[in-house]
Amino acid sequence: MMESATVTGNSPELTAEKVLEGDLRAAAKLMRDIDDGMPSALATLKLLYAHASRAEIWGITGSPGVGKSTLTDALITRLRGQGRTVGVVAVDPTSPFTGGAILGDRVRMQRHATDEGVFIRSLATRGHFGGITASTRGVVTVMAAMGKDVVIVETVGVGQDEVDIVAAADTTLVITVPGLGDDVQAIKAGILEVGDIFVVNKADREGAAGTAAQLESMLAMGRDQPRRAGWKPPVVQTSAAQKMGVDELMRAIAGHREVLKADGGRLLAARRRERARLEVLDILQARTLRMLEERLEADGRLQGLADEIASGRSDPYTVSETIMSGLFGDGMRSK
Amino acid sequence: MMESATVTGNSPELTAEKVLEGDLRAAAKLMRDIDDGMPSALATLKLLYAHASRAEIWGITGSPGVGKSTLTDALITRLRGQGRTVGVVAVDPTSPFTGGAILGDRVRMQRHATDEGVFIRSLATRGHFGGITASTRGVVTVMAAMGKDVVIVETVGVGQDEVDIVAAADTTLVITVPGLGDDVQAIKAGILEVGDIFVVNKADREGAAGTAAQLESMLAMGRDQPRRAGWKPPVVQTSAAQKMGVDELMRAIAGHREVLKADGGRLLAARRRERARLEVLDILQARTLRMLEERLEADGRLQGLADEIASGRSDPYTVSETIMSGLFGDGMRSK
Repeated sequence: MMESATVTGNSPELTAEKVLEGDLRAAAKLMRDIDDGMPSALATLKLLYAHASRAEIWGITGSPGVGKSTLTDALITRLRGQGRTVGVVAVDPTSPFTGGAILGDRVRMQRHATDEGVFIRSLATRGHFGGITASTRGVVTVMAAMGKDVVIVETVGVGQDEVDIVAAADTTLVITVPGLGDDVQAIKAGILEVGDIFVVNKADREGAAGTAAQLESMLAMGRDQPRRAGWKPPVVQTSAAQKMGVDELMRAIAGHREVLKADGGRLLAARRRERARLEVLDILQARTLRMLEERLEADGRLQGLADEIASGRSDPYTVSETIMSGLFGDGMRSK
Repeated sequence: MMESATVTGNSPELTAEKVLEGDLRAAAKLMRDIDDGMPSALATLKLLYAHASRAEIWGITGSPGVGKSTLTDALITRLRGQGRTVGVVAVDPTSPFTGGAILGDRVRMQRHATDEGVFIRSLATRGHFGGITASTRGVVTVMAAMGKDVVIVETVGVGQDEVDIVAAADTTLVITVPGLGDDVQAIKAGILEVGDIFVVNKADREGAAGTAAQLESMLAMGRDQPRRAGWKPPVVQTSAAQKMGVDELMRAIAGHREVLKADGGRLLAARRRERARLEVLDILQARTLRMLEERLEADGRLQGLADEIASGRSDPYTVSETIMSGLFGDGMRSK
């Protein structure tokens, strides 16, 4: 009786075991718990981490509307055609008011919904204190531990968090479209530096060749990135909707994989070390902010203090100092 | 001698005095110090806050490439024509590798560079622990305290931080363009909810009327936002480059101001209370993360621990727990 009691319920050990067997319900529940920051989820992730190193991690980023989901869908089809299984983690911007992902899994990549070799999950940031990067990395770990051959992480490519997420992938694809490229803002330099492969999507549109040429010259001007180890990022033109260029993109990704694995996998190991470092920072940040949030909620004075500021009786700097002293004590305050 | 020694140097009192007099060099220096998180900058902001309530705060957001800067430029010209002074704070995504704003003040809005009634400042996030929202709000306070009649805050409209920044403005403009609007992703619902006025820019392009109609129907479907207090967000078509629709946009902003000030300024006061609350949260978050970062740097073990993870001897969850205990003690850890 005692023994069965320890394995029923949701013990981290049992959940980890189920996830490693590819149990979809256990994995989906774990991902929700990660998104909610449940302590049991962290305990499970500890157990899963050692089993998560085999999967290839691909990052896909670009502005809203460039067709990231359509392109991901085309890549899934190619990967499934090769007999490989796929996990997809899509990070949606949040609604600060409704607190949920607007585009759920339903409107994304619907035709793979009944394919057991494909697991798709959308994440949304919630509340003021984010934590989306730590949650995303946790969900990637779960998908890799489930045995997915490739895990694709898709984010909008503009906020710092979103760039950080894909910058830690094995191979990072940066997507743009013709018509956004008519000013220097279209691809921010920070994004230029994290890309391993650049994609001009919707290339059936006018101006695709010009956008590709502009990208190539920007890449040629940029200094060599140590993280690329001499790899010259190619610019691939695709039209995911019309299935043009997707095979070429798959070849570019495979070519980058070769470079990662060359020389005893030196470059891949370096990427993985950098990912480990970022992952620790993300978890520390998420935990520290959660600690702050819990204490603020327990404290409960924030709204009253905000009223004092708005009526001119105080200011945000004095108020936050008072709160910091109360929460962490004078010795814990930042100098 | 003693007295002159207390007012020379960069005492917060002296800096505040100079900023209130509109001293450009003192203001620019203070903004750099805010961006660098200098304690003296916080002390100065405390002194300035009470003088910062008169300015109108406009938020402008939208994807990269929709023409936010060109539109801001056109609004500046109109405001200067009305004899009003303007501050602009532009938040650039960061390069995580070069650690700086790529688009500096030089490529933005050059023709206002010699106009003393216009003050433009770009901010970049730096490092892993952000803090851009707190810095941005500080720079807005400085511009308002300098006596600018209108302070425009421009951000890319995708990351959570970027949405939070403009959501706290008095009037928030959400910009899109035709051609991005062909799928539901073009305007995320979170952005729909923070907008007070929607702009279809580059409206000389094909499909502008359709994009505007699509936006109008999305807005009609959405539930009424309490923060709008019955205001129906208009959709304005502009071509900032061709100077079309900018007068209409200025009228829409003035119309929203009327609503904010109606009924004894009840709605404006509510917005300012909400902004005060967000500002306190931003400062608390920035300070807490800075404390974490300082302790990590002092600690110096992170790279060694990352190597242990990458080689399979540990995992990020165990490592971050060890670091949290070391930094904050067991009692400070999040439950």
